[in-house]
Parts: sequence; structure tokens; C-alpha cells
Amino acid sequence: MKATIIVKPKKGVLDPQGNAIKKVAENYFGVIFGEIRSGKYFEVEIEHENAKNIIEQLASKILSNEIIEDYEIIYESRNS
Amino acid sequence: MKATIIVKPKKGVLDPQGNAIKKVAENYFGVIFGEIRSGKYFEVEIEHENAKNIIEQLASKILSNEIIEDYEIIYESRNS
Repeated sequence: MKATIIVKPKKGVLDPQGNAIKKVAENYFGVIFGEIRSGKYFEVEIEHENAKNIIEQLASKILSNEIIEDYEIIYESRNS
Repeated sequence: MKATIIVKPKKGVLDPQGNAIKKVAENYFGVIFGEIRSGKYFEVEIEHENAKNIIEQLASKILSNEIIEDYEIIYESRNS
């Protein structure tokens, strides 16, 4: 099973990296951006009868910090 | 316009962070994972007549390094 995991700051949590990119981009392009939010992206492959449960725990316990981050998992069930 | 930009290492480029996560996860869960690849995730908002072009340049020139990384842009045209 393949899955994509996206981890991003919860709404309302400061995102210094996103803000820094916004400033750089505004200077570079000479335009005003709305919000820029930054996060992390992971592609995971695992063959296991319990794969969904393991991926869920990987996202919640290892790849994200539940106090300040949300995660989203997109499963691809095709065995490519 | 809103867009999501995903930046990840090109195929064949070493991904030390992904490999480190794979080792940690294998120890933690006691199972073998396939490949784990890590990347970056950005959400961008901009209202501009040339928005798509600016987002394309933001992705290619500021958020990614074309020598070692690929990027993907997903546009959301709804003005929410």
C-alpha cells in the first residue's frame, strides 16, 4: 500500500517559514501574496495486513506533533 | 487564487530525511517499510491577473531546486 501524508501547522499556529517565504516572494515578484503556509509531505510504502493502522500511527506519532500540527493521509491502494 | 505546491526529491536523488524516518519507523513498529520519501508542502494565496504565472515561478525559482527536486502545482480556482 502506498500513502501520502501531509503535515501542516494548525490554523492559528504561527508559521515562521511560511511568513519568511511570503516576504521573500513579495520582494522578488513585487506583488502582495495572501497567506503562504508551509508543511511537510511524505510518500510511504508498506505491505502489511495492518498497513492503514500503521500509516495512521506513523502520521500521528512520528511525523506530526498533534499540539501544533494537523495531518492528512491520502491512501493509494493500487499495488504499483 | 489558491494553489498547493509540492516539492520532492527527483527520482534517484538520495533522501536522507526519508531514509532516517524509515529507520525510526521500522524500529518503532517492528515492521519493514518500502521507500519513504520526504518533501515540502506549501499553500499559497494570491489575487493577481497573472497569478498562475507567478505561482509557477514561485515554485520553480524560490521553493524548489530544479537540479535535485521536482515540483507539482495543484490550482484551486475557487475564491474562498
